[in-house]
Amino acid sequence: MAIDETVRQHKYTLTEDEMPTAWYNIIPDLPAPPPPPLHPGTQAPIGPEDLAPLFPMALIAQEVTTDRYVDIPGGVLDVYRQWRPSPLFRAHRLEKALDTPARIYYKYEGVSPAGSHKPNTAVPQAYYNAIEGVRKLTTETGAGQWGTALAFACALYGLECEVWQVGASYDAKPYRRMMIEAFGAEVHRSPSDLTEAGRRLGADPANQSGSLGIAISEAVEAAVADPTVRYALGSVLNHVLLHQTIIGEEALLQMAQAGDTPTLIVGCTGGGSNFAGLSFPFLREKLAGNIDPRILAVEPASCPSLTHGTYAYDYGDTAGMTPLMKMHTLGHDFVPDPIHAGGLRYHGMAPLISHIYELGLMDAIAVPQTECFAAAVTFARTEGIVPAPEPTHALAMAIREAEKAKETGEETVILTALCGHGHFDLAAYDAYLRGEMQDEVVSEERFAAAMATVPHVAE
Amino acid sequence: MAIDETVRQHKYTLTEDEMPTAWYNIIPDLPAPPPPPLHPGTQAPIGPEDLAPLFPMALIAQEVTTDRYVDIPGGVLDVYRQWRPSPLFRAHRLEKALDTPARIYYKYEGVSPAGSHKPNTAVPQAYYNAIEGVRKLTTETGAGQWGTALAFACALYGLECEVWQVGASYDAKPYRRMMIEAFGAEVHRSPSDLTEAGRRLGADPANQSGSLGIAISEAVEAAVADPTVRYALGSVLNHVLLHQTIIGEEALLQMAQAGDTPTLIVGCTGGGSNFAGLSFPFLREKLAGNIDPRILAVEPASCPSLTHGTYAYDYGDTAGMTPLMKMHTLGHDFVPDPIHAGGLRYHGMAPLISHIYELGLMDAIAVPQTECFAAAVTFARTEGIVPAPEPTHALAMAIREAEKAKETGEETVILTALCGHGHFDLAAYDAYLRGEMQDEVVSEERFAAAMATVPHVAE
Repeated sequence: MAIDETVRQHKYTLTEDEMPTAWYNIIPDLPAPPPPPLHPGTQAPIGPEDLAPLFPMALIAQEVTTDRYVDIPGGVLDVYRQWRPSPLFRAHRLEKALDTPARIYYKYEGVSPAGSHKPNTAVPQAYYNAIEGVRKLTTETGAGQWGTALAFACALYGLECEVWQVGASYDAKPYRRMMIEAFGAEVHRSPSDLTEAGRRLGADPANQSGSLGIAISEAVEAAVADPTVRYALGSVLNHVLLHQTIIGEEALLQMAQAGDTPTLIVGCTGGGSNFAGLSFPFLREKLAGNIDPRILAVEPASCPSLTHGTYAYDYGDTAGMTPLMKMHTLGHDFVPDPIHAGGLRYHGMAPLISHIYELGLMDAIAVPQTECFAAAVTFARTEGIVPAPEPTHALAMAIREAEKAKETGEETVILTALCGHGHFDLAAYDAYLRGEMQDEVVSEERFAAAMATVPHVAE
Repeated sequence: MAIDETVRQHKYTLTEDEMPTAWYNIIPDLPAPPPPPLHPGTQAPIGPEDLAPLFPMALIAQEVTTDRYVDIPGGVLDVYRQWRPSPLFRAHRLEKALDTPARIYYKYEGVSPAGSHKPNTAVPQAYYNAIEGVRKLTTETGAGQWGTALAFACALYGLECEVWQVGASYDAKPYRRMMIEAFGAEVHRSPSDLTEAGRRLGADPANQSGSLGIAISEAVEAAVADPTVRYALGSVLNHVLLHQTIIGEEALLQMAQAGDTPTLIVGCTGGGSNFAGLSFPFLREKLAGNIDPRILAVEPASCPSLTHGTYAYDYGDTAGMTPLMKMHTLGHDFVPDPIHAGGLRYHGMAPLISHIYELGLMDAIAVPQTECFAAAVTFARTEGIVPAPEPTHALAMAIREAEKAKETGEETVILTALCGHGHFDLAAYDAYLRGEMQDEVVSEERFAAAMATVPHVAE
């Protein structure tokens, strides 16, 4: 066979010294501020004291800050340096297999200890809790990437960690539970008998496979019951999205190193933190008129909150314990089918992303899972990385755009977030390769019934 | 809690341009050449024609070369650049947890597409077969790291790939089989019904859990039966060890970057390729009088070929189809207990490492698996990487030495090879954490019975 011996640069790396030392807050750069969260009882805007049973004061301050940049503490930078800056790859072999003039770059977060982007926020969350004297953190996890990340971060700062894992994932992915335990945390299948919310919601057979909404209710209940315990959320909130912007800040430097400018930035969205992390720093540059990429969120057909949900105030959890947040929502008691992309099974979208979507600054699309896995297998056999099911949604769109570029001859420059590896998701690949994977079909009636539970809030 | 905010460098990275472009062959630098392999029938030294049914000519030439350096072809470098140079980490957090004055560095190969060091040789092996027109490669795999690596490499160069996986690992680690299939290869449980060797050896119930020796027999038989097929071996042979030396060549540059000189180099040994890869370039510097590290191989108590085997000519496989190689061997039909470190379950040691051990240029020790997993959990909870069971053997010794340094106050500088991650081995962690892991006990009678099968070769 003919072997291609062209010298090509595959990855763009930054030294530890080149790592950004501040997170970026997009709120002051937006043409309008996002609507405030409301108290679930009074429906009045919440204050810091309402969040104090859940989060340390430093994170509450970050949740509402209007500063454009927040310095990353030294104790967090030191941990980040273990795997950050993460590499940006040029997908030469994928491009060749697709025979496309498009140039495809992917920012790879699978190099982190948990194998995903989640430690970017788990580490600062554990850090701020530790310095404020918290003993234990509780949290939910879906596929397990967030639970792994928080367990790792808690181990480093000497915190205990207790995780409620969505039942469907707990059953299907035992290795994730084992990895969380290897990092020293305790894991429960959700719905569990350990909380009032778990017992009540678990009594309904329809809830037995669990959901992120139910697991959040359990973890929140366990946290507020004990003043030495706080809660940590892996996505959705402003401070979580803030922490993830280190991805995009690094990618900006690495794209400059590559001498290239993206025309399309594409990421998958569940709660939205990975997508925000990559795209917000580029959106800042777009709002400043420096670049003009299309920014595209990709969600699963089974849980299309942005493209199919209503934009309204809703609870972040199923039991209705969290503040009301204005967001694109499928209804707080919507239980998505147990698809393989467990990390994208959340009924709502981050309020900040929902707001930016309403402002017309980004696009969104929903794709079915077999197209995602077809893209994933092509990617694995060319780039050598078996992606997590979540970012395969972005890969599917990247491949669609690269194929379109082949037709038009346009040199599209695609930047995507490969937010994690799929080492714990091989059963999904097995199902796909055996032809046993189905595309999701959700009836309009089911969506409508779930959205009918969204509370009525006078605005 | 007190947070340590000291600025410390965690990783030493090289640019793609700084990646070494030649493999190092230690043979010409040794005080005596290693004994030659012999024909299994005639017991005369073999020539290239004897190996031609198994390997392409380029690899046969590398097997016997006396050149000190072999240039890495451009078509291989281009693939290496996807993940190489691999990072060298300073284990600051582990050192702190151990409260040791020792400085611990680990060269991490888990960043590769297969999650281990194996692609370093899988890629050139597939490359040379591809340019010589081979259609398909067969191979064996234990834990599955080698099978994954070869499947990946074959996908890149358009070769078919067929893998016989040791039965115990096939049963215990289905995700590895699925990952090999995700890369497009076919996997069989060994012993299988597909080969004469598999049928014959599989008839003995004692062989049902399989062994690398049996799986090699099957893969070799399948290769020699078809002139368009060749065989690939993941360790043991000179050309395999040669390809792995890129690990040590990079580590030399990275230790210089760190401004430090190892006093102990420690690696795990199954067939020996990972150990050779890290240590041979340092051994070159030691033989030249530039540095003086102790070089230490660590093997599992269940399969201690170096510390417990006889140094004699033996077959590389159980059926006796391979050439006779002079090596430390437990006997070619020794079937080790199905321990978690599946990659270390090989009856023999690489002839080149066996020779170097006999020359007194390195040490070896065997350790039991619970100590290895205790070390692994400490490592995971500090460094954030869950190691494969194989390199936990080296970590266990690194920790022993770091603890010794704490007693003596000596600033030992330890360099170890973290040759892969343990994402597919979480069941082993689960067993350890639940207190269900046993240390291996192998009776002297069982070793003696196995070694009695080593053939008598007049030298």
